[in-house]
Amino acid sequence: MLSKSHLKLITSLRLGKFRHEEGLFTVEGVKMVNELLYSNFEIKAIFATDEWISAGHLPPKRYTVEIFEISQTELEKISNLSTPNQVLALAFIKPNESLKCFKNEWVLALDQIRDPGNMGTIVRTADWFGFKRIVAAHGTVDLWNPKVVQASMGSVFRIPVHYTDLAEFLAKVCNTARIYGAFMEGDPVSETIFSDSGVMVIGNESHGISPTIAGLVHKKVTIMPATPDFNGRAESLNASLATAILCYEIQKQSKT
Amino acid sequence: MLSKSHLKLITSLRLGKFRHEEGLFTVEGVKMVNELLYSNFEIKAIFATDEWISAGHLPPKRYTVEIFEISQTELEKISNLSTPNQVLALAFIKPNESLKCFKNEWVLALDQIRDPGNMGTIVRTADWFGFKRIVAAHGTVDLWNPKVVQASMGSVFRIPVHYTDLAEFLAKVCNTARIYGAFMEGDPVSETIFSDSGVMVIGNESHGISPTIAGLVHKKVTIMPATPDFNGRAESLNASLATAILCYEIQKQSKT
Repeated sequence: MLSKSHLKLITSLRLGKFRHEEGLFTVEGVKMVNELLYSNFEIKAIFATDEWISAGHLPPKRYTVEIFEISQTELEKISNLSTPNQVLALAFIKPNESLKCFKNEWVLALDQIRDPGNMGTIVRTADWFGFKRIVAAHGTVDLWNPKVVQASMGSVFRIPVHYTDLAEFLAKVCNTARIYGAFMEGDPVSETIFSDSGVMVIGNESHGISPTIAGLVHKKVTIMPATPDFNGRAESLNASLATAILCYEIQKQSKT
Repeated sequence: MLSKSHLKLITSLRLGKFRHEEGLFTVEGVKMVNELLYSNFEIKAIFATDEWISAGHLPPKRYTVEIFEISQTELEKISNLSTPNQVLALAFIKPNESLKCFKNEWVLALDQIRDPGNMGTIVRTADWFGFKRIVAAHGTVDLWNPKVVQASMGSVFRIPVHYTDLAEFLAKVCNTARIYGAFMEGDPVSETIFSDSGVMVIGNESHGISPTIAGLVHKKVTIMPATPDFNGRAESLNASLATAILCYEIQKQSKT
């Protein structure tokens, strides 16, 4: 059964304010909860239908997690999915660690990505291509937003995202790294030789990289369209596609 | 004013059946309608608020298009957008031409992409990277679905998409072309040397490339994750990201 206090708690977590007050976020569906179960995130409780419970998804190390059996109707009340899928878990948000500069790796930096779908996809992509961490400027959409968590397909459990003052991070903490930025007017990515490690900055969906951050970038790069009239119309590929291409190219060069 | 018959006609076009019976589709918002106005698509009528009409968006060659002034409330009734934006146009669907094989160019082939957002993004990406046409297997989401049109950001007006029997196209019409396909188990894209022209096949979001089509592919390619455990979990990048990376790599190689 779903108690009133659980219903109230879980639905309140749709808002970032309450997620961070409670230190909790939600994870939904069989596949995503499975990713959570095998991650190193602490789980507060699981709310699941009989179907999920009887299938025995729990690995031994999770035997102590509290499980509440709920009905399909109750699941629909707490779910953020258009098609609720057997289970919702409450997990503890990991604290935002202060970030050092890691000299021999590539870091993805996000300058205020706002769309949860884009954010989740970007986290997923960075994880796919072996980036070890992401730095996000204040103003970037919350990582624990249910849509970000779902769109990341579990990558939020694998790759840390540090929210910070991005200008300070680039200027002081990581001031020996080579900093690249995705702009509409830069050198073609396809002709760029990337360094062995560095920071790749991706800007906001509408406004791109903010002026302060732009001033700290050493090399501006652009994913060129095949025909120049695209650029004449002042358009760009969307942020998540651009990130995928940049991460792909950086990973490709790092292997050769 | 919006007549009842117009209201009925426009809202009926949300369904593919009626779009193809009427030969009409809808285009919305200032930016997208602008793309339409400067395209070579025929326009049946425009429904717009006073704000749009008084701003004088019409180029001379469109002076004969019939314009109906409607209220914001009427626009909300016919709009498919969460935030209706001044204008909705009714345009004529271009007939699905029979397709020849073009020997010296790259063609993108879609084997039943189902999600309208993915489809629009893929059309956009192919256009961005200079693909001249797309071939879509029957079962691929309708190009004139309002979500596809909007997600393409106007690329549906620039790049033709031919719906056809894809197996027959690959086996008979385009049987001299080199055919590549995106699979979960193929050679790394980053190590692949693509031919100067050919066909790149992208599969369905859930099931990938269907067995019949797979049998016609000459070279299977994969966008490799940095760490092999991703593949161990039988996962892949989503279809629109994969397409973006493949189109980028093909365009890059064609320039060198």
